[in-house]
Amino acid sequence: MESAYKELCGRLRRIQVLGSVSGLLGWDEQVNLPEGAAGQRAAQAELLAELHHAAATDTGLCAAISACEQVLAAGGLDADARVVVAAARRDYDRVVKLPVELAAEKARLSSEGYHVWAAARKARDFSAFAPILEKHLALARREAELLGFGECPYDLAIDRHDPGLTAERIGGLFAELREGLVPLVRRIDARVAADKMCARTPVALRGFDLAAQQRVVRAVTARLGFDYKRGRLDVSLHPFCEGSGDDVRLTTRFNADEPLDALYSSIHEAGHGLYEQGLPSAQAGTALGVAAGMAVHESQSRLWENQVARSRAFWRWLEPTMRAEFPKELAGVDGDALHWAANAVEPGGLIRVDADEVHYNLHILLRFELERRLFNGTLAVADLPAAWDALSTELLGRRPEHAGEGVLQDVHWSGGAFGYFPSYTLGNMIAAQLWTAARRARPALEEEFARGEFGGLLDWLRAEVHAHGRREDAFALTLRVTGEALGPKALLAYLEERYGG
Amino acid sequence: MESAYKELCGRLRRIQVLGSVSGLLGWDEQVNLPEGAAGQRAAQAELLAELHHAAATDTGLCAAISACEQVLAAGGLDADARVVVAAARRDYDRVVKLPVELAAEKARLSSEGYHVWAAARKARDFSAFAPILEKHLALARREAELLGFGECPYDLAIDRHDPGLTAERIGGLFAELREGLVPLVRRIDARVAADKMCARTPVALRGFDLAAQQRVVRAVTARLGFDYKRGRLDVSLHPFCEGSGDDVRLTTRFNADEPLDALYSSIHEAGHGLYEQGLPSAQAGTALGVAAGMAVHESQSRLWENQVARSRAFWRWLEPTMRAEFPKELAGVDGDALHWAANAVEPGGLIRVDADEVHYNLHILLRFELERRLFNGTLAVADLPAAWDALSTELLGRRPEHAGEGVLQDVHWSGGAFGYFPSYTLGNMIAAQLWTAARRARPALEEEFARGEFGGLLDWLRAEVHAHGRREDAFALTLRVTGEALGPKALLAYLEERYGG
Repeated sequence: MESAYKELCGRLRRIQVLGSVSGLLGWDEQVNLPEGAAGQRAAQAELLAELHHAAATDTGLCAAISACEQVLAAGGLDADARVVVAAARRDYDRVVKLPVELAAEKARLSSEGYHVWAAARKARDFSAFAPILEKHLALARREAELLGFGECPYDLAIDRHDPGLTAERIGGLFAELREGLVPLVRRIDARVAADKMCARTPVALRGFDLAAQQRVVRAVTARLGFDYKRGRLDVSLHPFCEGSGDDVRLTTRFNADEPLDALYSSIHEAGHGLYEQGLPSAQAGTALGVAAGMAVHESQSRLWENQVARSRAFWRWLEPTMRAEFPKELAGVDGDALHWAANAVEPGGLIRVDADEVHYNLHILLRFELERRLFNGTLAVADLPAAWDALSTELLGRRPEHAGEGVLQDVHWSGGAFGYFPSYTLGNMIAAQLWTAARRARPALEEEFARGEFGGLLDWLRAEVHAHGRREDAFALTLRVTGEALGPKALLAYLEERYGG
Repeated sequence: MESAYKELCGRLRRIQVLGSVSGLLGWDEQVNLPEGAAGQRAAQAELLAELHHAAATDTGLCAAISACEQVLAAGGLDADARVVVAAARRDYDRVVKLPVELAAEKARLSSEGYHVWAAARKARDFSAFAPILEKHLALARREAELLGFGECPYDLAIDRHDPGLTAERIGGLFAELREGLVPLVRRIDARVAADKMCARTPVALRGFDLAAQQRVVRAVTARLGFDYKRGRLDVSLHPFCEGSGDDVRLTTRFNADEPLDALYSSIHEAGHGLYEQGLPSAQAGTALGVAAGMAVHESQSRLWENQVARSRAFWRWLEPTMRAEFPKELAGVDGDALHWAANAVEPGGLIRVDADEVHYNLHILLRFELERRLFNGTLAVADLPAAWDALSTELLGRRPEHAGEGVLQDVHWSGGAFGYFPSYTLGNMIAAQLWTAARRARPALEEEFARGEFGGLLDWLRAEVHAHGRREDAFALTLRVTGEALGPKALLAYLEERYGG
């Protein structure tokens, strides 16, 4: 019964196309939308969400899934189809169990929550935001109960971004990471302090021509392999990557005094974009045509941003381009100083999005721990600021002076986006493991980078990671590609190698 | 039974929102879409067209219309509601007669057609585009048959843009126009030739800074009243205006050697945008919230572009701004020469979008004649280039050297947009009639322009035209506002006054 499978794929494709239109509306909202059109756009987004929900809960979809399951039970269809049908069943069961009012309530709360959070952050007043967080947690718990995650509601939040992962499994990995990372960071911090006394303070890069920055960012991302015939680069307040297949859109932001911000945020987003451009487009809409999960997605952005683009070899290639585009701006900056600036380590930072790769994962360990305790009932919302400050002192070595640089700094919780933070650090672990495996597979990788050749790495990622879609979860994928279980060892070794001194 | 009417308006609003998403996809396709993403965009457009069709043919909509009709028959509801219900009935009856596959096929063909047309125009190869045109004509004929326009399929194409108008009625007005216009143009052409011998050759404007052009275009359109908090201006191959309500998007194109092209195409599109921004947004989706038709729409763009922005008074205001923005570019150009350049008449031009307002309507008479013949079966697609060339010689006095400056010059047919061209000339007629009426109502209008004040005219248009939505067709609207039947007399008088010498 090939026809049932064809019917299923057609319906999944339709849901995917609807989602892609919503995605475009979201992109346009952040890149183009006139300020007066927010209400009009909300009406469009709401209607598209309703249509998406209708397609995802259609009884015809359920019938097609059931028919495919029968064919599979009778020994028909292949292993690929089995993956697609299982994922479709899982997604369908999940979406039909949630009343549409719940989604509407969450959307409403998120919209309100964003404004309350922005005002609370400005006023450095957690108590103003606490009721929103309470309501989001209550909603998340109700969802978890409806979907059979009542025992461990945080697992649902995690599973949504990374199918197959749990708080317990991540907790084990993060405990192991913490054990190695905290002493390593202390050691690097001490070395950085010593370096600074020896005048290896990162140089300040100021007044970089914006048009030249745009040219560099575009040239670099194209050289890494991002296909501009199937994508774009635009400007938005916060960098992001949107779209899939033949229409993948990156955004960044340009500031004359932060040339490395535009460069590295663009490379980060291009890493996401390369993954999307590399997924099998013939399978669009099915589990074979989508990313394995957000941890693997973040591994791609981090690998290109950190392992590749902060390497000495990469800068050997990039430096002449930079000097040609910024002759005056870089007049007093030698090659070493430029490379140091791209690898600057700043101890004591409290803001996650400004953190260097040495400190970044400490910010995630903090958030994961707090989210986990909020969900398992061992931490009350009212006690969250004190818990944040204590953990900040413990992990980052500094206590925030106010909620704006502490518990209120991230937008995520205002929209009820729990369980996403761990993906960042899982992605960093996977990136380090992929990096080890890639260098083993292609020993001359860094010599290629120094010549501006990145196709070898991209081809390897295409074959090992991108082509597989969501066939495996992050654990299975990492094990297959690297020969090692997903874990913190490679990340610790990488940080040691690059920043250990 | 207010509830039936409320139900109807809600459903019409939903259809309008779906259409606005399709509109955004179309805007994005021409402004942003990566070249490799045409297929992906076509799939999105097709699905949205299908959903739009489903909403427009929903039996619940039919029930709501019927319920409202019963209430109206019983003497309930008001005159406004009567307009809305009648338009909804007409649209519903029309759309239920068209199978959904037809709409999807047209959307697909239009998306493909745009890319084929662009390539064919570049290659100056009509034969590459001919199959698209054949298919569009076949689709249009099938639609006409299904909708009861089998006797005169071109009437359906016209009626879609201008409800109530027919090929015969337009043919009569155009014959009357041609009779007066051809001798007038010949006379003006001769005067221009004589002027040129007296050195009043329009000055060549070259090397105009692009960033300054953008500033001027934005400042001028904002000054005319276009609200940039509820709209945008972008760049595309062919200028257009898309969107409604709080999100109206204009496009133009910039060329250092054609500063007046960007200026006038932007003012033209801003004229459309001012109309959209002036429609009653509370009525969005109903006949009270949409434009009366494309002829009236074009009257708005033409009025601002020609009657306003080519006037001596307008240039008295604009000249200092131009000199401030283009001090070097305009160093050798005096005020008269600048105004002449904006009113340059160039006999023998072959490109419609480059045509001055004296010759413009000749281009439309040509297209109307050819569309009419393509539809009534007296002209085959294969013979279209030869017919174009012959009529071009007859009306414009010149034969195109290749298809790119002849039959392939316009984008319209690539999307099956037949019956639109006549709206331009009908719009010119209406614009001239509105201009006469506006000056009668506000005798100091041109003195206001000279001071950069355009709110008087805009307010008058808002009250007389924009606020009325689609209450009347182009004939009724023109008669109400101007006191004269729609016809060519005011246009001929206006051209005589401004260019007759």
